[in-house]
Amino acid sequence: MSLAAALLGGPGPVQRRAIAKAITLLESTRTDHRQQADALLTELLPHTGRALRLGISGVPGVGKSTFIEALGLFLIDQGLRVAVLAVDPSSSVSGGSILGDKTRMERLSMDERAYIRPSPSSGTLGGVAEKTREAMLICEAAGFDVVIVETVGVGQSETAVAGMTDMYCLLQLPNAGDDLQAIKKGVMELADLVVINKADIDAAAATRAQAQIASSLRLFGQLGHPDHAHHDRTIWHPRAMQLSALKADGIDSFWAAVSEYRDLQTANGRLAAKRQAQAQAWMWERIQAGLRQRFAEAPAVRAVLAETTAQVLNGTLAASTAARRLLAKFSGENDHA
Amino acid sequence: MSLAAALLGGPGPVQRRAIAKAITLLESTRTDHRQQADALLTELLPHTGRALRLGISGVPGVGKSTFIEALGLFLIDQGLRVAVLAVDPSSSVSGGSILGDKTRMERLSMDERAYIRPSPSSGTLGGVAEKTREAMLICEAAGFDVVIVETVGVGQSETAVAGMTDMYCLLQLPNAGDDLQAIKKGVMELADLVVINKADIDAAAATRAQAQIASSLRLFGQLGHPDHAHHDRTIWHPRAMQLSALKADGIDSFWAAVSEYRDLQTANGRLAAKRQAQAQAWMWERIQAGLRQRFAEAPAVRAVLAETTAQVLNGTLAASTAARRLLAKFSGENDHA
Repeated sequence: MSLAAALLGGPGPVQRRAIAKAITLLESTRTDHRQQADALLTELLPHTGRALRLGISGVPGVGKSTFIEALGLFLIDQGLRVAVLAVDPSSSVSGGSILGDKTRMERLSMDERAYIRPSPSSGTLGGVAEKTREAMLICEAAGFDVVIVETVGVGQSETAVAGMTDMYCLLQLPNAGDDLQAIKKGVMELADLVVINKADIDAAAATRAQAQIASSLRLFGQLGHPDHAHHDRTIWHPRAMQLSALKADGIDSFWAAVSEYRDLQTANGRLAAKRQAQAQAWMWERIQAGLRQRFAEAPAVRAVLAETTAQVLNGTLAASTAARRLLAKFSGENDHA
Repeated sequence: MSLAAALLGGPGPVQRRAIAKAITLLESTRTDHRQQADALLTELLPHTGRALRLGISGVPGVGKSTFIEALGLFLIDQGLRVAVLAVDPSSSVSGGSILGDKTRMERLSMDERAYIRPSPSSGTLGGVAEKTREAMLICEAAGFDVVIVETVGVGQSETAVAGMTDMYCLLQLPNAGDDLQAIKKGVMELADLVVINKADIDAAAATRAQAQIASSLRLFGQLGHPDHAHHDRTIWHPRAMQLSALKADGIDSFWAAVSEYRDLQTANGRLAAKRQAQAQAWMWERIQAGLRQRFAEAPAVRAVLAETTAQVLNGTLAASTAARRLLAKFSGENDHA
């Protein structure tokens, strides 16, 4: 049986092994594997797109694993299949992965209706994000209903996750510093839903945080789109809510909000438009990365890059002049190859 | 007399015409002009770097022109020569320029110790910023002591201006919405100095705004660099101040703060390090832009780009597969040229 057939053949141990094999293939650095992975993706693509793609981020300690496990078990109870993927650009440095230890989500990882995959562990954020996007497509073709992509928020990983999911949820602790950090990093304005976790520890603080974040989100909405009145019920307005993942309290309300988002954004056409824009942006992001790699690896560029950079740094060559010279080397390189 | 000699020959009508001619040359799209401009820049570069590069941004209505004129006249009074350049990526759309009308800074523009140049009026933000950076070098070689680069803050122009100046100042009105917008856009955290203008209109509001912004800046500093105690006097901590440009009230305090910044950042080595990092980032930004242009103009890419993009948008081709195919076309194109 071909890999595609095994993936499309429905749940079970055969499909499970096929998913793992497909993801290993697309994470491989071998050219022939990459070609096989591209052929597989093209074959599977018509079978993708039916899952809800849910991005979850939050700083360490916010309770992401507990939340995702509670959500995953809730969804499985509803008869849905759940895949959990991760974007962790730091795993290449630390050698470990935020999801490497499956005991982190012990109950969920043992359930055959769930599939948990740690972050690809090598390369740039762009490369890690690309492999996760492709793994998401594999899971969708395999019939998972919800694909959760989580990130711990290192570097620009929140932006990467928001750029590959339908709905981006930010987990926050009930305190204001956390809040301002999210605003500062530009993460707050990516959020479709801000979830204040650990509401059971300090209900008053959680309620204050919820009101404050809701107010920021409203103001952001007004600043970004002054014409969009907040009472327009045909579009989604980012909102804040509180829950306790540890006590599995509020997970149903969270899922109700996600479902409302999905219905609204499907009806008004924004979900489809978002996915198209994401795909196009992703294509150009990968093109840019590929061009930069080709440039950096071109022998004619490598021969002079260090010296040219030194001239720019010591002030004997204008940066724009240096760029033009290096680009000329690159083009010459290709012309005479 | 060569253009370089005229530029280096000291103030006067000859130098003035040479500056205009040099800037026209580097704004030209003709290849031979571009080559001449590069040669000129390389010749002038050893004579640059002695000016203070001051970035000024703020939304329309904040009083930027009034502030820059008041500051310019103050500096001229101190015996300094002042150049004012602008980055206005919208000028290519509007056809006009934020500095096109010199009556905007009537007194300053008539003073021969000042040089005012409107924004280059065509191209992308990257292209406009590049020409402004180069014009800045021309002005430095001509012996100007202070180069002010202003922007109205369209798109990412604040980031571009912060990326080419020693000190980035944000002008704000004394109200909170303005404040939050700056935080949201990520401009507040670029700011070395936030200036609340029009303090004469509502002193109480200006004082509230100053306290609030100072508090945000402190918190940003702690979030970004938890190890840098705010009392460390060997480094600069972003601060907020208020003034009235219209009444020329507070310009001296502003300049005192700028001078303090310059002295501190010169002594601790951060100014030199910042300029090096800016030059290197600038070089790579231009390389990326150049690569993207070469890619988009390559016949083999152009032949299939529209169709490939359509396949990505209608979901029959994965974005990463599309990127790899287009990159292969690009490389093939160059190999067989």
